[in-house]
Amino acid sequence: MNQSIKAEIEAMCALAHECARRGWVPATAGNFSVRDPRSGTILISRSGLDKGRMTPADLLALDAEGRIMQGEGKPSAEWGLHTVVYAKRPQARAIAHAHSIWNTLLSAQCVAAGYVAIEGYELEKALSGVETHRHCERVPVIANAQDCGVVAEELRSVLDEYPLAHGVLLSAHGLYTWGTSVAEARRHLEALEFLFEVECRKRMGAAG
Amino acid sequence: MNQSIKAEIEAMCALAHECARRGWVPATAGNFSVRDPRSGTILISRSGLDKGRMTPADLLALDAEGRIMQGEGKPSAEWGLHTVVYAKRPQARAIAHAHSIWNTLLSAQCVAAGYVAIEGYELEKALSGVETHRHCERVPVIANAQDCGVVAEELRSVLDEYPLAHGVLLSAHGLYTWGTSVAEARRHLEALEFLFEVECRKRMGAAG
Amino acid sequence: MNQSIKAEIEAMCALAHECARRGWVPATAGNFSVRDPRSGTILISRSGLDKGRMTPADLLALDAEGRIMQGEGKPSAEWGLHTVVYAKRPQARAIAHAHSIWNTLLSAQCVAAGYVAIEGYELEKALSGVETHRHCERVPVIANAQDCGVVAEELRSVLDEYPLAHGVLLSAHGLYTWGTSVAEARRHLEALEFLFEVECRKRMGAAG
Amino acid sequence: MNQSIKAEIEAMCALAHECARRGWVPATAGNFSVRDPRSGTILISRSGLDKGRMTPADLLALDAEGRIMQGEGKPSAEWGLHTVVYAKRPQARAIAHAHSIWNTLLSAQCVAAGYVAIEGYELEKALSGVETHRHCERVPVIANAQDCGVVAEELRSVLDEYPLAHGVLLSAHGLYTWGTSVAEARRHLEALEFLFEVECRKRMGAAG
Repeated sequence: MNQSIKAEIEAMCALAHECARRGWVPATAGNFSVRDPRSGTILISRSGLDKGRMTPADLLALDAEGRIMQGEGKPSAEWGLHTVVYAKRPQARAIAHAHSIWNTLLSAQCVAAGYVAIEGYELEKALSGVETHRHCERVPVIANAQDCGVVAEELRSVLDEYPLAHGVLLSAHGLYTWGTSVAEARRHLEALEFLFEVECRKRMGAAG
Repeated sequence: MNQSIKAEIEAMCALAHECARRGWVPATAGNFSVRDPRSGTILISRSGLDKGRMTPADLLALDAEGRIMQGEGKPSAEWGLHTVVYAKRPQARAIAHAHSIWNTLLSAQCVAAGYVAIEGYELEKALSGVETHRHCERVPVIANAQDCGVVAEELRSVLDEYPLAHGVLLSAHGLYTWGTSVAEARRHLEALEFLFEVECRKRMGAAG
Repeated sequence: MNQSIKAEIEAMCALAHECARRGWVPATAGNFSVRDPRSGTILISRSGLDKGRMTPADLLALDAEGRIMQGEGKPSAEWGLHTVVYAKRPQARAIAHAHSIWNTLLSAQCVAAGYVAIEGYELEKALSGVETHRHCERVPVIANAQDCGVVAEELRSVLDEYPLAHGVLLSAHGLYTWGTSVAEARRHLEALEFLFEVECRKRMGAAG
Repeated sequence: MNQSIKAEIEAMCALAHECARRGWVPATAGNFSVRDPRSGTILISRSGLDKGRMTPADLLALDAEGRIMQGEGKPSAEWGLHTVVYAKRPQARAIAHAHSIWNTLLSAQCVAAGYVAIEGYELEKALSGVETHRHCERVPVIANAQDCGVVAEELRSVLDEYPLAHGVLLSAHGLYTWGTSVAEARRHLEALEFLFEVECRKRMGAAG
């Protein structure tokens, strides 16, 4: 494993700790991965881990089809969603999946519409390629399901349908976001979570 | 005392500190215990303790009837509720009791119904034995009372009535939850508190 | 200065840091004092201090009439309210004054009524002398005023009128609370702030 | 660079870390600067920086027209707004720009009115020169725009129109505030963010 991947893994552990501090990965929820661009190997957090204590030793190495190459324990139950994102987004090198109060509320509200539309906020410009706050970011929302294969199929479909999306929501479940580096994935995660909270508070206040 | 129990006590102190950081045990409220499965001894936080500073020395050893075996000070005033949970849930090795803003609000809203119903959230799967977000978790709510014996009797009754429940709420008071280890009790606590906040925000927003 | 007072001052600095972390003393707001029961000397935080960095050297010694005995800088502009509380509550050895979001909102809502009534919460029992959650805690609310003498006079009056009160609110300004030790003042502060947040969220949600 | 400026830079880095902890500079958003009063040099955070890790080495030196004198990377894209504030407020030695949930919500609500009016709160007195809570603080709100020159022109205009303002909001974007020292800029930032949260919660509750 080269120095660059080691640094990315360290950065991902730091992100996991920060997510724990903010309450975005409660009760061992959430998962994180990094992809080695040379070998295609995916390093993913093991199942059942308190993310506030994640260390490099808590990652398992998978190949692109999800076969375990190295590491102890089981990979996150949602490893199949990571392989879909990496397949559909060839530039992605890091994925974060978080369960926050606001992404849970907003995704449940918007699942019938099929997406959350966010428009008019400066912070959208923290999403790579977005140059103006006038941009309407559509975050697709997939209905949650127990069959991981069904969710994976839906995920494949929305990633094709929304080629410019920076994240995908699972209804009353959580957010998947990614980046060409851990730093970019972290920026997308922080930006989307901020936007979800603002948008959800605005909608709930307006209804009130 | 063997190494396994010592490790559990350390884990419980870490949980107490985290609860303090989150504001779930304000003003010395809340209490925590661990049970030694070999001897049946219950190690419980002493009364009046700032949980942000809890150390192993702050625990008292009680037998299954609540008689003090070892330790200084008085046990938590609610020690009798711990002994009820341990009696009714023979697998339980750890109990956490927290007072959060959201469990206070939601329990007061739902005491007339007798339970809080939570359904459709992925995070329910952090509760042991729950395999699908379609599961409806019913958290029983007991009316608060000054007479600990009355509350203990009610607790005994709801633990029989709700054999699959992962926690019990006391109205405008707090949550009791437990696990077969401190790690499981912590996971249940974090999951239930997350679900209470989401559900309560949804109801308050929807009412508006 | 004896060891006991030194320990109380250290405990008060720790409380100030915790208040800063929680956002209860923003922008150098808030103030803290300890009284030496033997000499009657009041040790109070100096004016304009970032409470997140308060150390024992940031306290000034005042006599019961507020004359500076020792220390650099000016005492908190509200020193006169501390001397009123110590005069009317002879057992008090520590006072905390905090500006939180929720005490600001709730005091402004209730100033016309003259008090905030809080009833039915278990956490009321963290207030010394309160034995049941059925207790109705009335926290008097004084209209804010620029003339400190006017506020001091009002404070004297409500402390007489509400002999059992554990704190006094200044409208859209903040909370004064106290205790026979720093630990008790801290417990009262944490309990009242918790109760204000719960009560204010309940009222705003119900209105919504 | 003299000792005084070095101390100010350290204080600004500490403020940036605190803003990151509070979620006020998510996703590398926000920026900070200090001006050397002798040379007129502006030290400003570089573009794309995670403010939770800002160190003195992350600042670039600009002259009053924004030309880079020293440092690596690009200055914050909004450096032109800093030069406008320093030109219009000759006493200012420090500027902070933060993106919080509450300043985003409130600025979007008030952009049509042109300003946010805040009145009746004790914490207004943390704003330099404000002697009474009866003071009505008008914080001008500028419509957000992609053309930095347009925003700079608007900023120049509102700084003339509101000579006593302690900050300026950009709609659905963030707050600019400043001070004659980093300590004063920090005090203004903490006070305004507190007032925005209180005011926005009050309005959303009252609307309900």
